Amino acid sequence: MKEHRIVFAGDSTTDADKLATPDRLGTGYVRLVHDALVAFHPQGRYCIVNAGISGNTSAQLLERWERDVLREKPDILFCMIGINDVWRQFDSYDALPPAFSEDAYEQHLTAMCERAADVRTLIWMPPFFMERSRSDEMRVMTERYAARMRAVAHKTGRELLELQPAFDAYMKARSGLSVSWDRVHPGRIGSMLIAREVYARLAREVS
Amino acid sequence: MKEHRIVFAGDSTTDADKLATPDRLGTGYVRLVHDALVAFHPQGRYCIVNAGISGNTSAQLLERWERDVLREKPDILFCMIGINDVWRQFDSYDALPPAFSEDAYEQHLTAMCERAADVRTLIWMPPFFMERSRSDEMRVMTERYAARMRAVAHKTGRELLELQPAFDAYMKARSGLSVSWDRVHPGRIGSMLIAREVYARLAREVS
Amino acid sequence: MKEHRIVFAGDSTTDADKLATPDRLGTGYVRLVHDALVAFHPQGRYCIVNAGISGNTSAQLLERWERDVLREKPDILFCMIGINDVWRQFDSYDALPPAFSEDAYEQHLTAMCERAADVRTLIWMPPFFMERSRSDEMRVMTERYAARMRAVAHKTGRELLELQPAFDAYMKARSGLSVSWDRVHPGRIGSMLIAREVYARLAREVS
Amino acid sequence: MKEHRIVFAGDSTTDADKLATPDRLGTGYVRLVHDALVAFHPQGRYCIVNAGISGNTSAQLLERWERDVLREKPDILFCMIGINDVWRQFDSYDALPPAFSEDAYEQHLTAMCERAADVRTLIWMPPFFMERSRSDEMRVMTERYAARMRAVAHKTGRELLELQPAFDAYMKARSGLSVSWDRVHPGRIGSMLIAREVYARLAREVS
Amino acid sequence: MKEHRIVFAGDSTTDADKLATPDRLGTGYVRLVHDALVAFHPQGRYCIVNAGISGNTSAQLLERWERDVLREKPDILFCMIGINDVWRQFDSYDALPPAFSEDAYEQHLTAMCERAADVRTLIWMPPFFMERSRSDEMRVMTERYAARMRAVAHKTGRELLELQPAFDAYMKARSGLSVSWDRVHPGRIGSMLIAREVYARLAREVS
Amino acid sequence: MKEHRIVFAGDSTTDADKLATPDRLGTGYVRLVHDALVAFHPQGRYCIVNAGISGNTSAQLLERWERDVLREKPDILFCMIGINDVWRQFDSYDALPPAFSEDAYEQHLTAMCERAADVRTLIWMPPFFMERSRSDEMRVMTERYAARMRAVAHKTGRELLELQPAFDAYMKARSGLSVSWDRVHPGRIGSMLIAREVYARLAREVS
Amino acid sequence: MKEHRIVFAGDSTTDADKLATPDRLGTGYVRLVHDALVAFHPQGRYCIVNAGISGNTSAQLLERWERDVLREKPDILFCMIGINDVWRQFDSYDALPPAFSEDAYEQHLTAMCERAADVRTLIWMPPFFMERSRSDEMRVMTERYAARMRAVAHKTGRELLELQPAFDAYMKARSGLSVSWDRVHPGRIGSMLIAREVYARLAREVS
Amino acid sequence: MKEHRIVFAGDSTTDADKLATPDRLGTGYVRLVHDALVAFHPQGRYCIVNAGISGNTSAQLLERWERDVLREKPDILFCMIGINDVWRQFDSYDALPPAFSEDAYEQHLTAMCERAADVRTLIWMPPFFMERSRSDEMRVMTERYAARMRAVAHKTGRELLELQPAFDAYMKARSGLSVSWDRVHPGRIGSMLIAREVYARLAREVS
Repeated sequence: MKEHRIVFAGDSTTDADKLATPDRLGTGYVRLVHDALVAFHPQGRYCIVNAGISGNTSAQLLERWERDVLREKPDILFCMIGINDVWRQFDSYDALPPAFSEDAYEQHLTAMCERAADVRTLIWMPPFFMERSRSDEMRVMTERYAARMRAVAHKTGRELLELQPAFDAYMKARSGLSVSWDRVHPGRIGSMLIAREVYARLAREVS
Repeated sequence: MKEHRIVFAGDSTTDADKLATPDRLGTGYVRLVHDALVAFHPQGRYCIVNAGISGNTSAQLLERWERDVLREKPDILFCMIGINDVWRQFDSYDALPPAFSEDAYEQHLTAMCERAADVRTLIWMPPFFMERSRSDEMRVMTERYAARMRAVAHKTGRELLELQPAFDAYMKARSGLSVSWDRVHPGRIGSMLIAREVYARLAREVS
Repeated sequence: MKEHRIVFAGDSTTDADKLATPDRLGTGYVRLVHDALVAFHPQGRYCIVNAGISGNTSAQLLERWERDVLREKPDILFCMIGINDVWRQFDSYDALPPAFSEDAYEQHLTAMCERAADVRTLIWMPPFFMERSRSDEMRVMTERYAARMRAVAHKTGRELLELQPAFDAYMKARSGLSVSWDRVHPGRIGSMLIAREVYARLAREVS
Repeated sequence: MKEHRIVFAGDSTTDADKLATPDRLGTGYVRLVHDALVAFHPQGRYCIVNAGISGNTSAQLLERWERDVLREKPDILFCMIGINDVWRQFDSYDALPPAFSEDAYEQHLTAMCERAADVRTLIWMPPFFMERSRSDEMRVMTERYAARMRAVAHKTGRELLELQPAFDAYMKARSGLSVSWDRVHPGRIGSMLIAREVYARLAREVS
Repeated sequence: MKEHRIVFAGDSTTDADKLATPDRLGTGYVRLVHDALVAFHPQGRYCIVNAGISGNTSAQLLERWERDVLREKPDILFCMIGINDVWRQFDSYDALPPAFSEDAYEQHLTAMCERAADVRTLIWMPPFFMERSRSDEMRVMTERYAARMRAVAHKTGRELLELQPAFDAYMKARSGLSVSWDRVHPGRIGSMLIAREVYARLAREVS
Repeated sequence: MKEHRIVFAGDSTTDADKLATPDRLGTGYVRLVHDALVAFHPQGRYCIVNAGISGNTSAQLLERWERDVLREKPDILFCMIGINDVWRQFDSYDALPPAFSEDAYEQHLTAMCERAADVRTLIWMPPFFMERSRSDEMRVMTERYAARMRAVAHKTGRELLELQPAFDAYMKARSGLSVSWDRVHPGRIGSMLIAREVYARLAREVS
Repeated sequence: MKEHRIVFAGDSTTDADKLATPDRLGTGYVRLVHDALVAFHPQGRYCIVNAGISGNTSAQLLERWERDVLREKPDILFCMIGINDVWRQFDSYDALPPAFSEDAYEQHLTAMCERAADVRTLIWMPPFFMERSRSDEMRVMTERYAARMRAVAHKTGRELLELQPAFDAYMKARSGLSVSWDRVHPGRIGSMLIAREVYARLAREVS
Repeated sequence: MKEHRIVFAGDSTTDADKLATPDRLGTGYVRLVHDALVAFHPQGRYCIVNAGISGNTSAQLLERWERDVLREKPDILFCMIGINDVWRQFDSYDALPPAFSEDAYEQHLTAMCERAADVRTLIWMPPFFMERSRSDEMRVMTERYAARMRAVAHKTGRELLELQPAFDAYMKARSGLSVSWDRVHPGRIGSMLIAREVYARLAREVS
């Protein structure tokens, strides 16, 4: 029976209150992906690690990259990070250090890539924002950071899994506020959208 | 925007602790189906009612059929009932009244059908058991009750949605005990299996 | 010693978790206004009623207008309502009834005015939104509703107390997201901004 | 007054939530045996230790054999272990290491025997399963493991106390599901069955 | 399958915290008797009602005799009452009404007998006290009340089941204080002693 | 202002749930004595330490005599100990070590006396039992232990404060069971009786 | 055995959290008086009712005089009321109605007297204040109200039990703040002072 | 964007239950000052530290002066301390050490001043008491301590911010008891009075 080691690195969207669930998978997209893999592909074994921590920025994720992510020796590593690098520039009372800049963001991602050289499959999931107005100031900034992630992926020959399109399709019919009051935390509906994309990618792997 | 009124009638598999969730959808397959409909078909409106109550037998469901089910005026009504009619014959300390017999079961289903004449689409989901040994005494009895449900459906020209095949496919690779220690409550993995079947049926409806 | 009967009607911004506070004043701007009046004008007596209920729309406030507001026989009545009429059009899964339309909103306000003919001083506080982009779709709609409130005030010869300017001044320096992740609930900083405006108006009255 | 040191080693059937009871005897058969000894043979002193831990396999029990079992210096040692070695092969999502094999099981028991050479009376209680169908796949495997325990007992000249017959007698009248939904945890009825057998053996000793 | 309706009427010794147990059997001798019947005589059905209420005197039990006891239509009715009639004369701060006298006690028991004419088997269990000194003032009084119960039983031709002998046998080896600090509440050891006597009587009935 | 350092050493009668009270005085006689001293002799300062621990025997108190008692440098030291040395011989399931014998008791008290040579005033309070029958086996033994304490007091020239007489006076009117179901723990009424004796002795000291 | 029916009417000083104590006596002076009567005069029976309610003014006590006080048919009735009539004039935010005036206070007491004509012994306890400065504005007002109570007592020939002197004696040595931060609630030390006076009066009655 | 580091050192008036608030600002004047600064001067950044601890005396504050106060490197340091040095002399049961004397108080303040030489702006807030009678013994003593603080401020050339005048103005209209039952803890009204003074001083700084 084939075993698949899959790690999801990220922030609160990945974390999804994982410490409150006995198996530490949380209540978000990681849970849905795990359950779908076991249910629909029972012939495999899945060692799935939720390595998201709420509130993490790229700097914080980089700091724990070996300890929480690489030590798990993933075959497949998904990484969704960056929205907090952006958000703190809008909601913070305190002055932000340089670690929040676009350039710092790119450097953090690059460092993660280099240290993950042994990981067979590394899949970047660029940050997205649940606001359909493309001129919204936070969406604009989110897209600039997403572009940086794409640049890193291309430069290092790693995969990209885009999630903004799934949300944009949804937002043709309804405002992003119906998914999330703060337009960042995906909740159950947004987790379903993310999980479908991630599961589709994994189904190719495990079938 | 088109509105769909969908009701799920049943026992604990449907209920799934619904009173502990603010929107009363529970944590089982009804939740997954709801989230998938909203996420992947946002152009529709979904009024979804979880009318499952843990421990219900067909007699108990019939008793509350108008009050809890028909009063919601469903366009589409799913009904999964019967496993408790079977189970009580195995786990009970007390003598069971005649209402638990196969014949009574068929009569209860027939009565539900008659009273639901105004429901456009009524879909029966026969009871299933998460045990792959077809000679297991409880699986044998479950199948006899399922056959009664099929008979009612055919007689009244209503739809059937079979779930045992999805579990049998799963159990080719793993024991049913990996889904559920008691082989009745589907948990997260079993809910995923059920939800896929139900969602597939509804996707035809709402697209 | 002069007694002032002051009622604040509204939604969650006014309510501010009032049922969790023993004196039912809540933790928002009503609390701050009360404390400032007592502290800085101790020669008066203040009978202050928080008549806000979280989630209220103009239709819901109108429904309880006599029971919760007029029955208190205010000398001075502040009314802040409308943001939920707007918000539900963005975050709702269900279809909205006509009571959420702009025209309905104006009719509700007009009915409140008529029934409050005996109130000496009635002060309308138009809805505001903590988003500095004036092209944001929810801000645009909020402003249309605010314009309706102004029209009602002018038509009936009642006072207006504008709060959007105080937030716009603040948002010159920082994003509205620093006040509130959902841009609606004012939190401590927004309550301070509102309280200053309301207190300034009342100080003229009680000095 | 004669003192008897009696230790019960095992898994959840022995443990029975012992940490939730002030005297650490748990709520299962160990409790019943203790109470019956004190009540019906008050002329003796009984130092009884519940050394069961929920979920333990034979490998885990062996690992703590000195620390939790032998250190108590029992005159009489009961050991009931093995059902989790079997069960994990049915309910596990993860791949099982070799420590769960039948051969490993026999090696673990043999090692326990060797280290317990100083124990005057060592009584093995082979694993049992509350399913009356002898062709059930988990019962079949349980019986294979029980046979291994018998082999070890015979080889080392130690006693056996069989419990499956008591359950089989019960199951002539009722399904095993009436004792236990998962057919493993004995609950109050099953504990009564076990306690009668264990007490009968001890009564010979203490009278 | 034969059904046996068995009711236990009494005070705290019978009650044994029954409201804290989901099946309302409590944690005392009633529980043990029930479990032993089901475990060792599974061919019967047992409808067992714990009709004990903590603190009850004979007057209080008489008052609820129809409502709580006879309404259950027992085939076999056990009744253990009287220790509180005695105890209140020792521990009470307030003056006791005549209802606590020996004569009143006998009248209460007689009335219960008369009203229970339809009960096939009524078994009286005279009060006992866990003190081995026969000159202890509370034991002396308890024995006077027990004698009254025996008189009623003889007069009405009903059975007696004596429990004091079992405790006296135990107390040859250990003080009654080892069973119970207050010498009234039997705890686990005393419940085991009572249950053995009651079970022995019932085993004759159900075999 | 004169300061008095007073320590009360003992078992549960002294302890009286002290850890549940913020000032660690407990809810028994120590509390009453403290409150009466402060209320009726406010010109003094009272440093009062409750050094009782529930369940303590004389052996256990001796073991912590320096740490808990002498380290507090009392001017006046009250010591009430011994009832648990007696009680364990009646309520224990396990065999008792020699440390519970009368001779051991006298040795423990003697050792306490010797180590407390620097304490100005040491007052022994012999154990008492709330049973008026002088032939009760536990009262008989309690009196034997009390005699040993008196012997130690006389031999070392220390004071005695007898409490049994106050309880005997009370028990002329009511059974000891009205104070305490187990005849050991004094409760509120017994604490009042003890406190009056202790306060009377202290009032001579502090006036 | 003689029975004494004693009722204590009053405010929080009497109430003392009575609803939190199983026998409804509270934790203040009523508890101490009860315990001392039972302990030191066990030959009597005491039916003691705590009829204090926290925050009560004389108007509120009068309103419930029949229901809570006279219905208990006291032989001896203690009444301590008035400090809240005074205190509200200092701590209130709202305008006080005429019911708080000195004249109203006297009328309320007079009405209580008239309705209590059948009570054998009625003892008034005038309000007191734990502040030793006799020029303190709240002490001055308390004394004016106390004088009114004395006038009512004299006019109706009822007893007085003065408590201020006991507190004044205490306050010669220590500030009233050592008893009570708010100088109103007596706490444990003040309750001891009150209880001594009340007990001394009752001891004459019950001996 | 300019950053202001502001520390508030003190006792419970400053602390205001800070550990119960996630941002450790408490619920008192520090919170109000923070919120007003952010709301009305959003162009600045404010690093505000609540360094108050309930119950602190000047000796205790001095002991933690480096650790809790200076280590935060304040630009502006407010210090309100002394009321507990005074209060303990009124409410304490134990003898007070010399550290509570007026001279000790002045020495503690002087030592704080010397160690805070690097702090640009140090503002002393003398203790105040919410009692309008200037002859009240605790107010008299509070004023003596306040005079000592003023002396230290003058001697070291540091600022003073007086708060007693704001309370005296308030108390012209209402008793101090309307702010606080113990006349020390300012509650919401007193916090509003303090916050206005502190904010006015800071507004000069940050504009």
